[in-house]
Amino acid sequence: MPDKDNYKVIGTRPIRHDGEDKVTGRALFGADFSMTGLLHGKVLRSPHAHARIHSIDTSQAEAHPGVKAVITSADMPEVEDGLVTLAEGGTANLKFMQNNILAHDKVLYKGHAIAAIAANNPHVAEEALNLIQVDYDVLTPVMDVKEAMSAEAPLLHEDLTTTSLGQKSEVVSNVAQHFQHQAGNIEKGFVEADIIVEREFKTATVHQGYIEPHNATALHRADGHLTIWCSTQGAFEVQGQIEKILQLPVSKIKVVPMEIGGGFGGKIPVYLEPLAAILSQKTGQAVKITMDRSHVFEATGPTAGSYIKVKIGANNEGKITAAQAELIYEAGAFPGALVGAGMECIFAPYDIENYLLDGYDVVVNIPKTAPYRAPGATNAAMAETVIDEICEKLGQDPLEFRLKNGVREGTRRVGGPVYPRIGFLETVETAKAHEHYSAPLEGTNRGRGVASGYWFNIGLQSSVTLHVNSDGTLNLMEGSTDIGGTRTSIAMQAAEVLGIPVEDISPAVVDTDSIGYTGVTGGSRTTFATGYAAIEAAKDIIEQMKESAADLWEVESGNVAFEDGVFSSLNGKSQQAPFKEIASRVHDSIVGRGTVDPSAPGGAFATHIVDVEVDTDTGKVEILRYTAIQDVGKAIHPSYVEGQMQGGAVQGIGWALNEEYVYNDSGEMSNSSFLDYRMPTTYDVPMIDTVIVEVPNPGHPYGVRGVGEVPIVPPPAAIANAIYNATGVRMNTLPMSPGRVLKAIGKI
Amino acid sequence: MPDKDNYKVIGTRPIRHDGEDKVTGRALFGADFSMTGLLHGKVLRSPHAHARIHSIDTSQAEAHPGVKAVITSADMPEVEDGLVTLAEGGTANLKFMQNNILAHDKVLYKGHAIAAIAANNPHVAEEALNLIQVDYDVLTPVMDVKEAMSAEAPLLHEDLTTTSLGQKSEVVSNVAQHFQHQAGNIEKGFVEADIIVEREFKTATVHQGYIEPHNATALHRADGHLTIWCSTQGAFEVQGQIEKILQLPVSKIKVVPMEIGGGFGGKIPVYLEPLAAILSQKTGQAVKITMDRSHVFEATGPTAGSYIKVKIGANNEGKITAAQAELIYEAGAFPGALVGAGMECIFAPYDIENYLLDGYDVVVNIPKTAPYRAPGATNAAMAETVIDEICEKLGQDPLEFRLKNGVREGTRRVGGPVYPRIGFLETVETAKAHEHYSAPLEGTNRGRGVASGYWFNIGLQSSVTLHVNSDGTLNLMEGSTDIGGTRTSIAMQAAEVLGIPVEDISPAVVDTDSIGYTGVTGGSRTTFATGYAAIEAAKDIIEQMKESAADLWEVESGNVAFEDGVFSSLNGKSQQAPFKEIASRVHDSIVGRGTVDPSAPGGAFATHIVDVEVDTDTGKVEILRYTAIQDVGKAIHPSYVEGQMQGGAVQGIGWALNEEYVYNDSGEMSNSSFLDYRMPTTYDVPMIDTVIVEVPNPGHPYGVRGVGEVPIVPPPAAIANAIYNATGVRMNTLPMSPGRVLKAIGKI
Repeated sequence: MPDKDNYKVIGTRPIRHDGEDKVTGRALFGADFSMTGLLHGKVLRSPHAHARIHSIDTSQAEAHPGVKAVITSADMPEVEDGLVTLAEGGTANLKFMQNNILAHDKVLYKGHAIAAIAANNPHVAEEALNLIQVDYDVLTPVMDVKEAMSAEAPLLHEDLTTTSLGQKSEVVSNVAQHFQHQAGNIEKGFVEADIIVEREFKTATVHQGYIEPHNATALHRADGHLTIWCSTQGAFEVQGQIEKILQLPVSKIKVVPMEIGGGFGGKIPVYLEPLAAILSQKTGQAVKITMDRSHVFEATGPTAGSYIKVKIGANNEGKITAAQAELIYEAGAFPGALVGAGMECIFAPYDIENYLLDGYDVVVNIPKTAPYRAPGATNAAMAETVIDEICEKLGQDPLEFRLKNGVREGTRRVGGPVYPRIGFLETVETAKAHEHYSAPLEGTNRGRGVASGYWFNIGLQSSVTLHVNSDGTLNLMEGSTDIGGTRTSIAMQAAEVLGIPVEDISPAVVDTDSIGYTGVTGGSRTTFATGYAAIEAAKDIIEQMKESAADLWEVESGNVAFEDGVFSSLNGKSQQAPFKEIASRVHDSIVGRGTVDPSAPGGAFATHIVDVEVDTDTGKVEILRYTAIQDVGKAIHPSYVEGQMQGGAVQGIGWALNEEYVYNDSGEMSNSSFLDYRMPTTYDVPMIDTVIVEVPNPGHPYGVRGVGEVPIVPPPAAIANAIYNATGVRMNTLPMSPGRVLKAIGKI
Repeated sequence: MPDKDNYKVIGTRPIRHDGEDKVTGRALFGADFSMTGLLHGKVLRSPHAHARIHSIDTSQAEAHPGVKAVITSADMPEVEDGLVTLAEGGTANLKFMQNNILAHDKVLYKGHAIAAIAANNPHVAEEALNLIQVDYDVLTPVMDVKEAMSAEAPLLHEDLTTTSLGQKSEVVSNVAQHFQHQAGNIEKGFVEADIIVEREFKTATVHQGYIEPHNATALHRADGHLTIWCSTQGAFEVQGQIEKILQLPVSKIKVVPMEIGGGFGGKIPVYLEPLAAILSQKTGQAVKITMDRSHVFEATGPTAGSYIKVKIGANNEGKITAAQAELIYEAGAFPGALVGAGMECIFAPYDIENYLLDGYDVVVNIPKTAPYRAPGATNAAMAETVIDEICEKLGQDPLEFRLKNGVREGTRRVGGPVYPRIGFLETVETAKAHEHYSAPLEGTNRGRGVASGYWFNIGLQSSVTLHVNSDGTLNLMEGSTDIGGTRTSIAMQAAEVLGIPVEDISPAVVDTDSIGYTGVTGGSRTTFATGYAAIEAAKDIIEQMKESAADLWEVESGNVAFEDGVFSSLNGKSQQAPFKEIASRVHDSIVGRGTVDPSAPGGAFATHIVDVEVDTDTGKVEILRYTAIQDVGKAIHPSYVEGQMQGGAVQGIGWALNEEYVYNDSGEMSNSSFLDYRMPTTYDVPMIDTVIVEVPNPGHPYGVRGVGEVPIVPPPAAIANAIYNATGVRMNTLPMSPGRVLKAIGKI
């Protein structure tokens, strides 16, 4: 392995392999896919947020010219009711999985799929949707988690009973799960506090807002093999979900991941794929279905809005003595568990002896929620405004306070395990020393805020295969969807091992038949885990090339060394040659393979500084300056790391200031377009300054940590703190939109 | 390795993996491919068989609405003139390779491509072809190889000099090459002969007649990477040709082989692929080009027509004392070397001490010839009619004669190396003992003939990768185009090693980025060589699974055995489990790899028996009964072996009785459609009976020999011998069509 002080590829900024294709429009996305005999599918969606289905009559649609097949939930295979244990561990309710794809006896959100049609062209399919007769009994929707928890609330699932602290109860309720973490003595901790701050927060339901809508094409073959082309964060994840939903053997499902136009967690669940598959099975032809933007908003998983109550006590020395939180998260129409991750992260930056966390997963009549970049953590990080208030009341600098209470190697995480080597304090020290933190901030209604955030990152299995070409270049095959430049960051790690330029490696994201099992692109794991697999595959290549060099040089096997990209013989004959020369002289095909399942992804911490100006006439908050500081372990490709930090910060600004699902009284989303669902554009944010901190992760050969998620965590809290600094008002509801700001400062 | 007497998978007849897709129309061929932004290409082709091009004016076509690009040979990169040595060995004339793709200063056959257009749709492209102005100086075409050899013949290439016995001469001529093999003393051999027969033969230019016309789609990316989707017998072969013709690095060329609707040797050379690639480079969009049937006949490689003179001497004891032959083969418009293979095969079944073979490769104004199933050997096997005549004159049974003179292990082949274990005599003995050979043949104008044939088969490199799925099934990736069921015959060899049903393996033919170098599907090598690689990959899987089983059972590494599909521990704990159980319990992805470059493909021999009836009023020859006997080494999938034997025999019957390129005086093909180019249909042939003889090839773990080519070799000679037996007339020209038969028997 190359010496870390002597990296040749890692830490450089080559152009990504797929860059020119993407900017010239040659990259192939799912919607670009076509083939002879392709049918087009459309989906009938519920106009009601909550209703019972009495009957569905598809006969007229089936008789419509050009219609090839109509399906409803009756076309789904029978599955066990209740939780089943999955092959890969964990449990799932297969009925719920199926019912989210096609509603059975109830529709549970506006946009919930009820039926799907395959026809000769998309217009015929759309026209025929109108011919499907659905007889509904409309019910009162339940849109708010706290209302949903009340005993009087209408029930979404008449047979859903609460699982409380791991035990199934007999209580029928909209509360699917109650989780709890505790340690120490919470009462004693608060007694020891000199100051206690308790606040409540509400965060909005928000969508990942990826540019590319969902799409899926399926071809069900006569022998039972199914091929799916789609936009997904994980081809093997699609394979696994299809296996459960359609009850097919995993070996008969081939998923071909097309390019992806963003996912951020929202392209992990399947929506259209099972519909296209059943329609193809019925018609014997390939079927393609795409969504438009309103479908994406109304029928795919946004992430959970939440109600959060936080209570923190500290003593006059500035030490936290106790912390308590209640987190109530929207599950959406079916149980989910995003609240769990929120609980993992809410107090993760702090060394706290006495704590109590309660989390509730609550079903409401909105789409089943999905992960969104550090899912659950951004909501929970509103606790950082409570930290800010405590610092203010104690008269302490908030970064000093974090240095005093912050976690380090050996600290046990609140609700979690003991930390390995981490870089939280380094991000705080870097922030404290940064020119931004001490820069004068002149003008009225301007303020500065800081906040920190944590994301744990994940490991999971990844596989990489490398082929050596006859000209000494290599092809790299991997199973990780490339969202943020990971083709290149993975190839760079192989190139570092091989001592060649990364341009000599052609990386490709291949289908599920063509590579070993590889987990989802999520949890900030791809550069970490798939890069690790690439390192192993490259080392495998080197071992084989040593043998080849020994053959070429006619020295004994084992008598060749490889260092700094050069093979040399050890027998004193002083033969030596670089990788490319040996590779091009070897006649046999050399294949290298790497499979890893690393257990220590290394947690990621970020500390952000933001300056805002509040327009007290309009309530608009302008971001004047933003600095994101983050421990990335080791930045394989610093530009892409910076890009992740900037992208995450901008999305966090969206959560903070503008983004939310707005529902009318019938539970219908009022703003399901990009005109009305207001995401930040380039006009809304300044250049996000980034500072990379590198505290190597001991769980990766090059020290990589996941970097993609944590930068979304601090922005809402940091901005709320800055708004307070500017106006003297503490905001407790996201988004801190102009109306809410005006109301908070007493202008309306 | 399984015991050969105890095979569980090999020798069975499972349904091929791609069978249902093929019969239900779900398999994806090149013409099925489409994508957003796809342009359509059309090719301007020469109306003349031989002409000089003075000028090409594309300006009007370029200005035509909807036209995106027009290319001519001026758009080809500069290459060296003359022979260059290729990276993989051998030589090529790059100018000739380029000029066959787009004519430069001369057109050399009707249909020769001159320009290509990419447009928004195929109709616009076709219309715009008419706007290209080409100024020709029409020259006299040279259509016949013997005329082409004369000093007075017009020259196709004014600078082509003859290479004679490996030495380049100064003689400018249409004769590209003169080859020679000799041994012993030919004069002495003929002196020792008691009987000498000398005959001349003419065989027609014939086409492989695959169902699917050529097609290619190319996408040239902005960073110089080129992806090609096409119908080819070898994706790596396309990659290699594109590398030379377009002077691109091999690592930037990715070839995706689509399903293939037949090839028989004709889908090894590229035609449309470079055109689509240049058009895509110019337009920045994907470009698709397809041929129609007349293009296939007029602009792709048929196989060589030939003139052959054979002289054989034998003594009264029935031993061959000498053999001589002159073989003159059409190269087509550019030099080729199919005659070389004809020379390897012509006397291959016989042990001959004294021989002299002369072969000539001659350019004529027809498309550059291409291989066609045992290329060159079927023409040469007309020598079998001379053997028949000798037997007749000596009063010997022709099979007895073959047993007396036939080759066996240790015999040196005429013009070749010493044979390893082969099965020629076994095919003759089987024929002799077959009920067909002694069955009464009643009725007038009926006759029986026999003939034998040889094909050497080839080895070359193949690679296979196997992935184990979590349910204990496997995916098999290979680079060999599947023409005759080789997905299954390859997977069966892996299944035999793994002790599982072949249905548990999903084989896939993948692109050039996704698998190690694999040679062309040709030379009857695929089941032999790629199957060999699959065996190696499966053994690699077993070794890894043994380690996994050791982990699972907590026994020491190395303490697990595998036999008969079952793993068992050697430590006395008596744990055991079949492959599938261990595979499904292993969490890590297991990847097996195999790469081979086998040197001993094992030659293949066939002996055929045919009964015919000649209609002396119409000249039509009807095949009454046909029995094909062949040494296949070991039949992995007997049904597919039989299918190859039947298909080859039927194609040979086509050569024998009907197929030929008919040219008018201007050198234009008169019959370039399937209505006029008469291939045998199901109405023209009886069921071809097959007898598999298994003499294991020592060069393969299971004894496999290539089986695909040799069955086309004996039919024309066998049928000529049967016609003689029926009518007393020896035919010497192929095809033995009704007109020729009538003429031969004196009816016209």
